[in-house]
Amino acid sequence: MNDDIRPGEVACALPGAFDAGLYFIGRIRTPWARRADCPRRGDPDGPLCLVEIDARWRGALAGLETGGELQLLYFMHEARRDLVLQTPRGRAAPVGTFALRSPVRPNPIASSIVQLETIEGGTLGVRGLDCLDGTPLVDIKPWRPARARSKTDQP
Amino acid sequence: MNDDIRPGEVACALPGAFDAGLYFIGRIRTPWARRADCPRRGDPDGPLCLVEIDARWRGALAGLETGGELQLLYFMHEARRDLVLQTPRGRAAPVGTFALRSPVRPNPIASSIVQLETIEGGTLGVRGLDCLDGTPLVDIKPWRPARARSKTDQP
Repeated sequence: MNDDIRPGEVACALPGAFDAGLYFIGRIRTPWARRADCPRRGDPDGPLCLVEIDARWRGALAGLETGGELQLLYFMHEARRDLVLQTPRGRAAPVGTFALRSPVRPNPIASSIVQLETIEGGTLGVRGLDCLDGTPLVDIKPWRPARARSKTDQP
Repeated sequence: MNDDIRPGEVACALPGAFDAGLYFIGRIRTPWARRADCPRRGDPDGPLCLVEIDARWRGALAGLETGGELQLLYFMHEARRDLVLQTPRGRAAPVGTFALRSPVRPNPIASSIVQLETIEGGTLGVRGLDCLDGTPLVDIKPWRPARARSKTDQP
């Protein structure tokens, strides 16, 4: 974790207790061992990454089919959580945390849309990720782009 | 919470402890007081819903502008978390939890894309939600559809 504050950044005092808990349901294997190595955004033509589901949850993969898209939620466990204003690399001025998709946020949950290419037992092969090797997985959902995009596209 | 199990549904034993914690950062006000009243999916032409941000996090709204889209993450606090196979209303056979966007999942975090219509102090007015009145808010992110959709659309 990096606790440096850059000019213009503002931290708040975090609450004394959490309001709810997360179960990690698996791990994501990627080629990126350090944060500086991660791409800034997932690339659908990027490397195949492996999503390893814990044995307890493997039965919940029933019904998934390769060739479609999934939404993955994962926990950016190395990010600090108390910045209200932050200055990402390459930005001149600080901006509100909720106007950014930075990992630094009160609940560091990332959401990515990936292509599902392989399913082998409890391991999914996907493209489109951007995260550190070993990132804890929080959820897998089918992705239906029409769902929230345009009423006229919906079935 | 509804703990009934339908035919074909399979529950697992949940882990004995959580792996990480969530802070609720606000509440969502919608017209729907019971789960049965909620729409099955958010509608961009649906009613205006209010997203009330806790005072601690209001500064993190800096930089948001009306007229665009946001991704909201929220916690479906009434859903059970232990079903591996489930049979949603209207389905004949059970299917894996990760092949559904049902609220019933190990980490009941919903993700919706909404239209941001108003910002008044710490309250956002949005359209496109589907959740219960009082639902705890977990995150707000700008939504950039090109980001994960198609490489050629990216800047």
